[in-house]
Amino acid sequence: MSRHASPVNDDNVKDTAASSDDVVAYMTSLGQAARAAGAAMRRHDTAAKNAALLAMARHLEVSRTSLLDANARDLARGRETGLDAAPLDRLALDDGRIDAMIEGLHQVAALPDPVGEIDGLRSRPSGIQVGQMRVPLGVIGIIYESRPNVTVEAASLCLKAGNACILRGGSEARESNAAIAACIDAGLREAGLPTSAVQVVATTDRAAVGCLIAMPEYVDVIIPRGGKSLIERISREARVPVIKHLDGVCHVYVDATADLDKAYAIAVNAKTQRYGTCNTMETLLLDAPVAAELLPRLAAAYAEHGVELRGCERTRSIVEGVVPAGEEDWAAEYLAPVLAIRVVDGIEDAMAHIERYGSHHTDAIVTENYGLARRFLAEVDSSSVMVNASTRFADGFEYGLGAEIGISTDKLHARGPVGLEGLTTRKYVVLGDGHVRG
Amino acid sequence: MSRHASPVNDDNVKDTAASSDDVVAYMTSLGQAARAAGAAMRRHDTAAKNAALLAMARHLEVSRTSLLDANARDLARGRETGLDAAPLDRLALDDGRIDAMIEGLHQVAALPDPVGEIDGLRSRPSGIQVGQMRVPLGVIGIIYESRPNVTVEAASLCLKAGNACILRGGSEARESNAAIAACIDAGLREAGLPTSAVQVVATTDRAAVGCLIAMPEYVDVIIPRGGKSLIERISREARVPVIKHLDGVCHVYVDATADLDKAYAIAVNAKTQRYGTCNTMETLLLDAPVAAELLPRLAAAYAEHGVELRGCERTRSIVEGVVPAGEEDWAAEYLAPVLAIRVVDGIEDAMAHIERYGSHHTDAIVTENYGLARRFLAEVDSSSVMVNASTRFADGFEYGLGAEIGISTDKLHARGPVGLEGLTTRKYVVLGDGHVRG
Repeated sequence: MSRHASPVNDDNVKDTAASSDDVVAYMTSLGQAARAAGAAMRRHDTAAKNAALLAMARHLEVSRTSLLDANARDLARGRETGLDAAPLDRLALDDGRIDAMIEGLHQVAALPDPVGEIDGLRSRPSGIQVGQMRVPLGVIGIIYESRPNVTVEAASLCLKAGNACILRGGSEARESNAAIAACIDAGLREAGLPTSAVQVVATTDRAAVGCLIAMPEYVDVIIPRGGKSLIERISREARVPVIKHLDGVCHVYVDATADLDKAYAIAVNAKTQRYGTCNTMETLLLDAPVAAELLPRLAAAYAEHGVELRGCERTRSIVEGVVPAGEEDWAAEYLAPVLAIRVVDGIEDAMAHIERYGSHHTDAIVTENYGLARRFLAEVDSSSVMVNASTRFADGFEYGLGAEIGISTDKLHARGPVGLEGLTTRKYVVLGDGHVRG
Repeated sequence: MSRHASPVNDDNVKDTAASSDDVVAYMTSLGQAARAAGAAMRRHDTAAKNAALLAMARHLEVSRTSLLDANARDLARGRETGLDAAPLDRLALDDGRIDAMIEGLHQVAALPDPVGEIDGLRSRPSGIQVGQMRVPLGVIGIIYESRPNVTVEAASLCLKAGNACILRGGSEARESNAAIAACIDAGLREAGLPTSAVQVVATTDRAAVGCLIAMPEYVDVIIPRGGKSLIERISREARVPVIKHLDGVCHVYVDATADLDKAYAIAVNAKTQRYGTCNTMETLLLDAPVAAELLPRLAAAYAEHGVELRGCERTRSIVEGVVPAGEEDWAAEYLAPVLAIRVVDGIEDAMAHIERYGSHHTDAIVTENYGLARRFLAEVDSSSVMVNASTRFADGFEYGLGAEIGISTDKLHARGPVGLEGLTTRKYVVLGDGHVRG
């Protein structure tokens, strides 16, 4: 079926039983088409996938006017319906953002194709050879909010990893997403790939999300991108595995054995380089012997940046103007110029704090002691553990993944920044020559 | 807390609100103890884990009499309550089975430790080094049925991979499991590992399973081992990721380009070497040009083994005595001396059949054609895909994993036979020297 077939009536969908039945039928048809496209994708090679990505980029380039027009209609409707400035900004496209989408497609096309790589092919005593081949997951459902550029990012990464995808963007971006979808569609056609390999959900009925996350027969994994409440709701209700990104309550622990200049640079950067990102430090843990020397220097730097400090009693006894920190501060993901500071007694105390209050996202130690560095790396149970580096490095691009579909705070499958590899799985391949089991 | 603390009253637990509260409190205490033990396990090295495994083996050796006594009480109660012969056989211990448990512990101790391995440590343009370290999952819940030797297998694999585990065996094996648990406990103590690293659930109240699968704060993954109905129920109700093993509807496709002697050997072995295993062939697909030559030879061999044949019309026109196969036969996991046979027209037809009716477990092609072998490996979406080998090879030991906790039919995390590596995850490690993000 065509990905533009049977779109349910859009704006004026009512939450009635009849329209719900329509949504179920529509989402089922998308699921079936995606499953078929996913199977077909296993027959297409790297060259075809790259050709499609580059063709999509060309279609975005020549469609700038219609993209900006569609986006202007979304923005006008957003303003009418009283959207705040922040979501309006996320929704907005301009030439720079279209350039970035085009550049992103070129970058994904240039990435090595993970599909087909065989690891560890070894001969067994029985005579068979056994290895593991990297293969697409199959069908990926992505649920996101107002940013229309996610449509291009998600489509390109899923496609490069050999998957079919179903994309459900925010209703506020529906005209922008439809215009982008047309470019994606044209690119797929041009490269001879199945157009159902990328399907953009054409209804804004919220029941569509409920369907998408409950079709294990058609969808292999759901990746929600958005606020915590969206992700929590989807994780709770999904009947399909979810790769999710929850809190980033990140710590920097400065041990007594730290080089204090490095500690200063890292503690300032981890907090102030950006406030709203998940890998920003939210709690600074200072080993007692260095607190008195380091805290005043840091407090001055944070004051310059306008960072509010909330601290334990020992912190407050060293520097002035620190708000008393409570239990809720140790667990807080501020995403704002606010920092919790605690003076601790050594690495055990620091690791116990991280285990109790952290979110297992990204945690760093600053130390010159080899044994402590080794312990911290082994014992802190977070998706990224760092020695003498800013938590802000926890990012797919910084790690060299080339692109990032998100950061996983799950332990299974993909943990930490998720690139193309996280959109694949591995199956066993067995090569014999008439071998049978004895 | 000790793993034998606060066992809820056992046989005579009533399904009342009061006892349910007790079960919740009990399971919560196990969960908390497991979480703490999991954290502690990250501090213990390979030598300590191996010492514990070998100490457990010694304790099993010297406890033979009490193990057999406990098992005899389980068997007597099983007979009284009318257990069938098959579950009674699975429940029974004898010296040979105790030997096998002891040998299993030695084998797991001899396996390489997966924990701590760092892959792909590379320098990035920013100056940091980034790699991925293999680490324990944390806390693993295992739910199984009557076989008491699973208690030792599951405990040893979880422990070697650095995890804490909570084991919930069948109530019919409760005395055997308690006796085995005492040996495990003694082994952990002797090696200085936390005894809560392996906890055997001491209540037979079925509410305990419901608790175990709904404590994401204490349990990282559930592995159910048992019949399909158990696994489906757990997957449906779990609030924790589940590594599951559902159907094995395995196919052998014999292409026209096959060496027919190899095809004969593989088709006979894949069906008749064992009937009740998930990697047994359930449907044989024969390419039309070779069906007339191969089918009579195979039918004779299957007749000798007492295998009932159910076939499509073309099959029935070639050999006599074949029952007509219906849709339900193509989807059947017989686990019995029954085989479905279909004559197909080439690899496309065969792969379409496998995609439609298969369970994505293990599928094989028999061919001497390089291009067809390559296509089958790339395009068939199963946890094991094979060329010229019997599906019966799909097994952790045959693949060289050393041991197997189960076979996963999931796509995410672990796919196919799951060994120690499937009980671990990878986190990013970042090594810097005061590096900050620009």
